[in-house]
Amino acid sequence: MMSNTDTHLLKEGERLDDLQCNGYYIIQNPEMFCFGMDAVLLSDFATGKPKGKVIDLGTGTGIIPTLMHARGKGTHFTGLEIQESSADMASRSVQYNKLQDKIEIIQGDIKEVPCIFKAASFDVVTSNPPYIQESHGLENLMEPKNIARHEILLNLEDVIKAAAHLLKEGGSFAMVHKPFRLAEIIRLMSKYRLEPKRMCMVQPYVDKEPNMVLIEANKGGRTMMKIEPALVVYNKDGSYTEDLLKRYNM
Amino acid sequence: MMSNTDTHLLKEGERLDDLQCNGYYIIQNPEMFCFGMDAVLLSDFATGKPKGKVIDLGTGTGIIPTLMHARGKGTHFTGLEIQESSADMASRSVQYNKLQDKIEIIQGDIKEVPCIFKAASFDVVTSNPPYIQESHGLENLMEPKNIARHEILLNLEDVIKAAAHLLKEGGSFAMVHKPFRLAEIIRLMSKYRLEPKRMCMVQPYVDKEPNMVLIEANKGGRTMMKIEPALVVYNKDGSYTEDLLKRYNM
Repeated sequence: MMSNTDTHLLKEGERLDDLQCNGYYIIQNPEMFCFGMDAVLLSDFATGKPKGKVIDLGTGTGIIPTLMHARGKGTHFTGLEIQESSADMASRSVQYNKLQDKIEIIQGDIKEVPCIFKAASFDVVTSNPPYIQESHGLENLMEPKNIARHEILLNLEDVIKAAAHLLKEGGSFAMVHKPFRLAEIIRLMSKYRLEPKRMCMVQPYVDKEPNMVLIEANKGGRTMMKIEPALVVYNKDGSYTEDLLKRYNM
Repeated sequence: MMSNTDTHLLKEGERLDDLQCNGYYIIQNPEMFCFGMDAVLLSDFATGKPKGKVIDLGTGTGIIPTLMHARGKGTHFTGLEIQESSADMASRSVQYNKLQDKIEIIQGDIKEVPCIFKAASFDVVTSNPPYIQESHGLENLMEPKNIARHEILLNLEDVIKAAAHLLKEGGSFAMVHKPFRLAEIIRLMSKYRLEPKRMCMVQPYVDKEPNMVLIEANKGGRTMMKIEPALVVYNKDGSYTEDLLKRYNM
């Protein structure tokens, strides 16, 4: 439900989606990019730090800081987004939810992180970065959808390097990505002293290959991983599993 | 069933276990070490090479080469085992099964592999190495059981380094290990140009953490992992799952 005073926050082509938690909404434009299950599962998976400073790299609509805040996983959240239109939309969602003192949206490039933020200035970093390496054959590389999904403006190493710069010693970096890139993810994390500590594979069905991996690393942590049971999304009859529903409830 | 001519192959304290495949048996001494589900699952998981030369590092009773042969995953198998008593037992199992022209057991140290075998002389390497790093508090480090389970005579890096030496370019290395060491496993494989290509986590129950990881790497392969659905061992009622039973059947 929107009051008349709120509707001015919506631009043409945008819609207001109810997050079903704390009365928060998120502004999205289906022509650009809508958040998916990956963002919700990441906000559930990330350990966070109740009294910590959190930054989300490539925040898009700002969904991850909003959900992390709702889950009490930090005191202050920053969302960094390179695309002006997305950053603007995310800022308006923050305004709509009256979270201006909790969440700050900054327009900027993940590759410029060392120029924007001091080293070791955050307790927690989260990211749901573009997954897809190939971008040949795309009609318009600079379309917002393509920038959000493909490694056009940055690659996996850029994200991990930025996270390592931002984190305090012992701080945690939680990311969602594609399972086929797991070896690369672990190697790159190690290269930047982010030691993988927890992992959860997300399988659509109990007998189907995972299509997402949730992984958390600690800066300077010791070598020892906790592998969680695979999260299965659907029961055989196509309904959501109890485990999935539990993670959606806040 | 043993004929009189066969019983001379058994020594005191040993027993003859029916593998329920091809009429093969394996000699084991419960005081020393008995093979477990990990060895059987590894022989199922490993791709092998039907016309290839295969070597198993730390073969113990020789169970893995015997099962890999039964599954048609190679033409000739070598089992390398450092412990004299285990190597002797494995040799007698090979004799018992009349597989002398298929399986050769060699007593030797995985760390001495470059002195024992030519580089790039195998198509496939398998290993179910000792899992446990800590060995303090063990009463007798040199007990066969402890040597088989703990990193006393070698560590993870020694096994991976040996596999890399033995494999031809493109050859595959399949290993079973503990999930909490996954980051270390992937880093060490990468260090020796063994690119992780396939992985399967083994969970006792659908909602329990995995206690085994099956992983296969290719020498000089390109970066791209196939993560298989987690293998669940038991149904909720404690019976074996269909997936597990399928892997035991040959």
